[in-house]
Amino acid sequence: MHGEDEVGAKVTLAEVAKEAGVSLPTVSKVLNGRSDVSTGTRAKVERLLAAHGYRRRVAGPPRTPLVELVFHELDSVWAVELVKGVENVAKANRATVVLTRSGTRHAPGPEWIEGVLRRRPLGVVLVFSSLPAEVKRRLRSWDIPFVIVDPAGDPDPDVPSVGSANWAGGLAATRHLTDHGHERVAIVTGPEDMLCSRARLDGYRSALTMAGLPFDPRLVRFGDFQVHSGFAHAGDLLDGPEPPTAVFAGSDLQALGVLEAARLRGLRVPEDLSVVGYDDVPPAQWSSPPLTTVHQPLRHMAEEAARMLFRPDVPGGAARRIELATRLVVRQSSGPPGGRAAPARRVPGRAPGARISAGA
Amino acid sequence: MHGEDEVGAKVTLAEVAKEAGVSLPTVSKVLNGRSDVSTGTRAKVERLLAAHGYRRRVAGPPRTPLVELVFHELDSVWAVELVKGVENVAKANRATVVLTRSGTRHAPGPEWIEGVLRRRPLGVVLVFSSLPAEVKRRLRSWDIPFVIVDPAGDPDPDVPSVGSANWAGGLAATRHLTDHGHERVAIVTGPEDMLCSRARLDGYRSALTMAGLPFDPRLVRFGDFQVHSGFAHAGDLLDGPEPPTAVFAGSDLQALGVLEAARLRGLRVPEDLSVVGYDDVPPAQWSSPPLTTVHQPLRHMAEEAARMLFRPDVPGGAARRIELATRLVVRQSSGPPGGRAAPARRVPGRAPGARISAGA
Repeated sequence: MHGEDEVGAKVTLAEVAKEAGVSLPTVSKVLNGRSDVSTGTRAKVERLLAAHGYRRRVAGPPRTPLVELVFHELDSVWAVELVKGVENVAKANRATVVLTRSGTRHAPGPEWIEGVLRRRPLGVVLVFSSLPAEVKRRLRSWDIPFVIVDPAGDPDPDVPSVGSANWAGGLAATRHLTDHGHERVAIVTGPEDMLCSRARLDGYRSALTMAGLPFDPRLVRFGDFQVHSGFAHAGDLLDGPEPPTAVFAGSDLQALGVLEAARLRGLRVPEDLSVVGYDDVPPAQWSSPPLTTVHQPLRHMAEEAARMLFRPDVPGGAARRIELATRLVVRQSSGPPGGRAAPARRVPGRAPGARISAGA
Repeated sequence: MHGEDEVGAKVTLAEVAKEAGVSLPTVSKVLNGRSDVSTGTRAKVERLLAAHGYRRRVAGPPRTPLVELVFHELDSVWAVELVKGVENVAKANRATVVLTRSGTRHAPGPEWIEGVLRRRPLGVVLVFSSLPAEVKRRLRSWDIPFVIVDPAGDPDPDVPSVGSANWAGGLAATRHLTDHGHERVAIVTGPEDMLCSRARLDGYRSALTMAGLPFDPRLVRFGDFQVHSGFAHAGDLLDGPEPPTAVFAGSDLQALGVLEAARLRGLRVPEDLSVVGYDDVPPAQWSSPPLTTVHQPLRHMAEEAARMLFRPDVPGGAARRIELATRLVVRQSSGPPGGRAAPARRVPGRAPGARISAGA
């Protein structure tokens, strides 16, 4: 028998067994994560344990030194940065990373939680997910800490999370363009129903106001963070009657789509069109020209999230929310409108490479 | 006591205990993957077990439903494709993926093998690694199957592996360019000491021969698969006395570097320079223009590798080697030299977008 069978707990466990209509050893098996218990029985017993406020008194069977990282999709160029962040912290704590994909877009399914309870990780880092109350309850009753990496800026007040400063990022990107003298700056941001898109849009709007420029709704487009949405919206903007001289994109992928839309129209970047991305994922450095972009510290965010698992909240305290700073990274896709000498190129000898304009 | 304690095994285990100078229960602990055995003792006992040809007679403690995926680095744009492939197969087999990073560039260190033996995965997929004999022996004595995803084309004859057709890929890329009429085709390939680089170079050479073109060593460069190496070598080639009209790069990242070198020299792609990449990782679709490239079926390779774990080799049989086909994906970075009407653009109305040449 195990450590949880001390007097106080024993009464509870016996009661739980009775209520669940199972034997005490079956309850014990559930508590010890044994696999020879049916899913239905396990769920019933756990529900009752949680309802009775049961928390294991002492350590149960040794916890597996795993940190579980949950994605709802692995397609994103973000994935590698996040994995690396979690892996760094796991390694420092002599743990290993388990990767799982949650069934649906925003919430891990019942199959997932069964797996977690079998694996007994040291903790769970969820990317971009919201958790049903039932899942939170089960993780808590097992003392498995969890934290959400939430770049969407829409934290569950009940769950510790790590985000980044979206509003400040939108402000910095737009100010960079207005400081260069751009007066028609378009924004192609993320989905309208995501708070991060709205925060960046508000930052954009404030930067325009600070520069004494009007806010023109025709220059605002909501996309989906993918290359094609940048391509399509930029094409539409550039083919319009009053095309922008600069586009602030909601992701680096959208910005790459903007570059391609410009190229197909014979527009040079940055001479004819300035482009600023968001995220600073590796492809931002590899594009032609390399992208000016807002650095979202994805790896650092994942590290912070994983660290939270190893120093959990004080019980009963409010869930923590950490928001990390974003910063502008200036590369070669932005400059003054019309290709006038940009501040960054004042010293021609120090320019990143001789530039023979194809249009000259 | 456990299933391995049948008569034949018992003798062996007692002998092993004696030889190792430990108690029989300690040997049993090692066999059951318990963590309360020192690393030194565990290694000694396992060495002796392996030396005596010990193989567990029946299943030991339940194997954890984990598939271990080992990278020596996670930086590569390949990582996500490989993780997805392994994850697909793991999920289909109700297993979860554990990600680990091996210490050194080519071989997992001693710390890694200790962790694997503690975790007891169903199997191990290694990316790009070679395994020291000692590690192979320990994995085998534990009946943990392992397989190598080996895009480098340098298989250990002793280990099952999955690669892809590098020579055929080099041939297809180069023929595509010579078929378009290019006569000065440069190659910027991977490191000189990697067989995949050599295989692609030989494919390139054969395609030139088949097109009746001479092989000019001045058009051959060895790089390191990174963006910068494509950028630097292409710059050097383009600034030379007889610049190529087409460059076949050893990776998509190198090809992106070639695009940037061309842009800085005012060269249009594909009108002034055709560029073909290798790998077909997502950034190949996002570049401006999108890259013609050789598709290396990374996800499929990882799937094949993971599947091998679930249907291991016949004991004593030769290690399997599977080589998957590569294929050319034609996008917009390649065409005839001098921008003559390309076959793909014969019907102007069906071109991917109106193209106003910046140089016109």
